Amino acid sequence: MPLYRATVQVSLRPSVLDPAGEATRAAAARLGVSGLVKLRIGRSVDVELDAPDADTARSQLELLSDRLLANPVIEDWQLTLAKAEQQP
Amino acid sequence: MPLYRATVQVSLRPSVLDPAGEATRAAAARLGVSGLVKLRIGRSVDVELDAPDADTARSQLELLSDRLLANPVIEDWQLTLAKAEQQP
Repeated sequence: MPLYRATVQVSLRPSVLDPAGEATRAAAARLGVSGLVKLRIGRSVDVELDAPDADTARSQLELLSDRLLANPVIEDWQLTLAKAEQQP
Repeated sequence: MPLYRATVQVSLRPSVLDPAGEATRAAAARLGVSGLVKLRIGRSVDVELDAPDADTARSQLELLSDRLLANPVIEDWQLTLAKAEQQP
């Protein structure tokens, strides 16, 4: 079965506060990094999946993202799917 | 001053265990998502920065990534920098 490689980017919805991001932004100013307008912290999940075809891989990963990787009440997610190079 | 938009991807070094990722992989199997070969969880930090030019923006963001966003003992980071569209 071909191997699919995917990245799921999970980010807080724009309306949700990000206290960790705000704390990091304050710390950045103390470090001497000025001019920061925005800093928001999300998750990035790297996945490798064996699947018979791309449609199956995508539907499995969508289920995974919706049910397990993101909390849809406060988070959005975005899936990027790529077929890995031929396996040996 | 132009506005630069950047994403810093922070991921665990390949030699570092990822217990949260392993737990998610086990939960995925119970959810009915089979064929998962790898699942590793990292952070993705979205930043907007005012800087006079791209070189300054990059050096500020490299300092930020190295000192604040990632723990270089166990994590790698990768910076993607883009100039935002003209501000109104």
